Amino acid sequence: MVGPAYDSKNSISANNPTKKLLLSPDSFINLDHGDPTIFQPYWRKMGERCTMEISGSDLMSYFSDVGNFCWFLEPQLRDAIKRLHRTVGNAVTEDRYVLVGTGSTQLFQAALYAVSSPGGSDRTSVVCAAPYYSSYKEETDFLQSGLYKWAGDAYAFDKEGPYIEIVTSPNNPDGSIREAVVNREEGKLIHDLAYYWPQYTPITRPADYDIMLFTFSKSTGHAGSRIGWAIVKDEVVARKMAKFIELSSIGVSKESQLRAAKILGVVIEGCQHFGTADIENFFEYGQRLMSERWEKLKAVVKNSQIFGLPKYPIEWCSFTGKYIESHPAFAWLKCKEDTDIETILRANKMQTRGGERFGVGREYVRISLLSPEEMFNLFLERLSAIEEKGITYEKNHK
Amino acid sequence: MVGPAYDSKNSISANNPTKKLLLSPDSFINLDHGDPTIFQPYWRKMGERCTMEISGSDLMSYFSDVGNFCWFLEPQLRDAIKRLHRTVGNAVTEDRYVLVGTGSTQLFQAALYAVSSPGGSDRTSVVCAAPYYSSYKEETDFLQSGLYKWAGDAYAFDKEGPYIEIVTSPNNPDGSIREAVVNREEGKLIHDLAYYWPQYTPITRPADYDIMLFTFSKSTGHAGSRIGWAIVKDEVVARKMAKFIELSSIGVSKESQLRAAKILGVVIEGCQHFGTADIENFFEYGQRLMSERWEKLKAVVKNSQIFGLPKYPIEWCSFTGKYIESHPAFAWLKCKEDTDIETILRANKMQTRGGERFGVGREYVRISLLSPEEMFNLFLERLSAIEEKGITYEKNHK
Repeated sequence: MVGPAYDSKNSISANNPTKKLLLSPDSFINLDHGDPTIFQPYWRKMGERCTMEISGSDLMSYFSDVGNFCWFLEPQLRDAIKRLHRTVGNAVTEDRYVLVGTGSTQLFQAALYAVSSPGGSDRTSVVCAAPYYSSYKEETDFLQSGLYKWAGDAYAFDKEGPYIEIVTSPNNPDGSIREAVVNREEGKLIHDLAYYWPQYTPITRPADYDIMLFTFSKSTGHAGSRIGWAIVKDEVVARKMAKFIELSSIGVSKESQLRAAKILGVVIEGCQHFGTADIENFFEYGQRLMSERWEKLKAVVKNSQIFGLPKYPIEWCSFTGKYIESHPAFAWLKCKEDTDIETILRANKMQTRGGERFGVGREYVRISLLSPEEMFNLFLERLSAIEEKGITYEKNHK
Repeated sequence: MVGPAYDSKNSISANNPTKKLLLSPDSFINLDHGDPTIFQPYWRKMGERCTMEISGSDLMSYFSDVGNFCWFLEPQLRDAIKRLHRTVGNAVTEDRYVLVGTGSTQLFQAALYAVSSPGGSDRTSVVCAAPYYSSYKEETDFLQSGLYKWAGDAYAFDKEGPYIEIVTSPNNPDGSIREAVVNREEGKLIHDLAYYWPQYTPITRPADYDIMLFTFSKSTGHAGSRIGWAIVKDEVVARKMAKFIELSSIGVSKESQLRAAKILGVVIEGCQHFGTADIENFFEYGQRLMSERWEKLKAVVKNSQIFGLPKYPIEWCSFTGKYIESHPAFAWLKCKEDTDIETILRANKMQTRGGERFGVGREYVRISLLSPEEMFNLFLERLSAIEEKGITYEKNHK
């Protein structure tokens, strides 16, 4: 999940990949959002296989599955989601409810609505261990709901009573594998597993939590479709989440749902026939790509005196059958204490997202590694060159 | 706009038009939702013209229009919307902001967010003249927002201070043409013009209000795409609405947006070449269809001793260049006082929506006239036959 803001007119960004990137030494590059255009070359290679045709008389009704309480979920998409998780081994879907949303963003809010405790005198506190995804706070608080309110860092949470803890694993922004931290009886958990896919992290076991959120944007790179899904254990919670989607938008685009079903089907096929068919396994491709980017980034950071990166353990990935390291979608870059690294990077024509947005210090910054190749390379070049300029900037401003 | 609930497994409904309707004398028919499948035969006739092809590598980015604050709006859709309104003459779009939403439902909530007055001690009251669309209340209140709250019938509203009035014209459920009723300085208006199209009502002038909501569902019948749009005068309001869509779902399905652009383009072409080309004018087609249904319905009601329908004035329609009557999407059927007409109709195997959901008495009921032909005919048959049974039912239950 990302929380984009629009760019200034003069910036050249990863955000319009249909236009040819024309990067010059002067171009401002936007690495703020996790716009997953990195995977576009793969899908281009897939050619006709993923092409979908929709006629003018298709998909006209509000309804997709009359008789299911999630009446707006296309059965083809539900089946593709279940098969994909079985194939990848990253989530339990047997005897679980599958819901679709307009991105996992809408489902996150549906989950808050479903598990908050109305009727109490207090709004239910929503917490997440820092550094946490920068948009949770705003998404929780923007309507000033009487049901729930943002309460910040889960580590600092000491209020009695019901609460909701979001567990993001692998974590956005820092890629770490996480478990709940508050662990009290009155807590409800929402697991945001947007990045629990083989290109980003070893698949160590099928996740099996009460509410799990996934998204088409990060699994295959199709952010423009706005398709997310939730896998939910409890029927009452699942029904309330479906009710939220109904009240919020009377369902979810059917065009996007059917396209997602088709593309996930191609991904599954690629996984099953890996090594024998002409479809390259998408996740192996993604893993190779992310691994290459991380190698390059680590080399640059290693040569630097001022930047640091988190270390990730090597773990057995049941999907690839190999010991692998995490290759998160974002670099969580650290500088020496109190350095305003976002400002330094901006002065060097790179838009990134500073640590304070994630509930930590400004010596941290989140940088998208999902940009097109050309932009990623320019980023590395600029990062390598920054040291001296960065320090100069620091001196001037102290 | 409709507020659907899922049907029981045994009902045969308009809601799954891809399956062949197999109506028998025993079939329960669902006329509760305004599922606009009536227009499907037209789009089937359009054949290839509206067919859209999307490849696997298309539409991957979050962004559609970097540089526009409504960065998630596909420029093609914006242009098609503006051209359509110019062609139909039903709304002013020059020097206005166009926003897209996941149905007009999402935009309605975006508008509440944008025009409510945060910071005051009271939540902004949201009112609408009864009978009002049955979902406004629930959509306004379900998150118990601290910004706004539902305050019911605009005619009964007498509270001082800021308020928001929704003006639905033609009105859902009763098809009447409306203006604001509270008319105080501190009021903000949201005009829901979902049904201000030539197939439902004469186009008497281009609407020109602060916030106007339209939807793909009711204009062309493509409810499954979840595309709505807003035309907004004030930049600050438009920006806040875009922010709402960003926080609520990080934009709107691009597949649906591009399909809507394509289909609206075909509609425009049909309007421009009416009488000369091989594309039939969609609105003329729709007007003929709705007019036929209303004639048949009126004949049945005329023969009845217990049912009544609203009367609509005949007005000059600038689009068709003719004097025409309204042919609303819903029949707003009235029975004698205190009759629970919804229950009577249900006992006769017709699911409709009772008056109490719309803020009036249970002697009213809203019935969708947008069902497939076969279902509409079965509805007329049952309505004709109901009188005796209805009265029997009444007697048994009094």
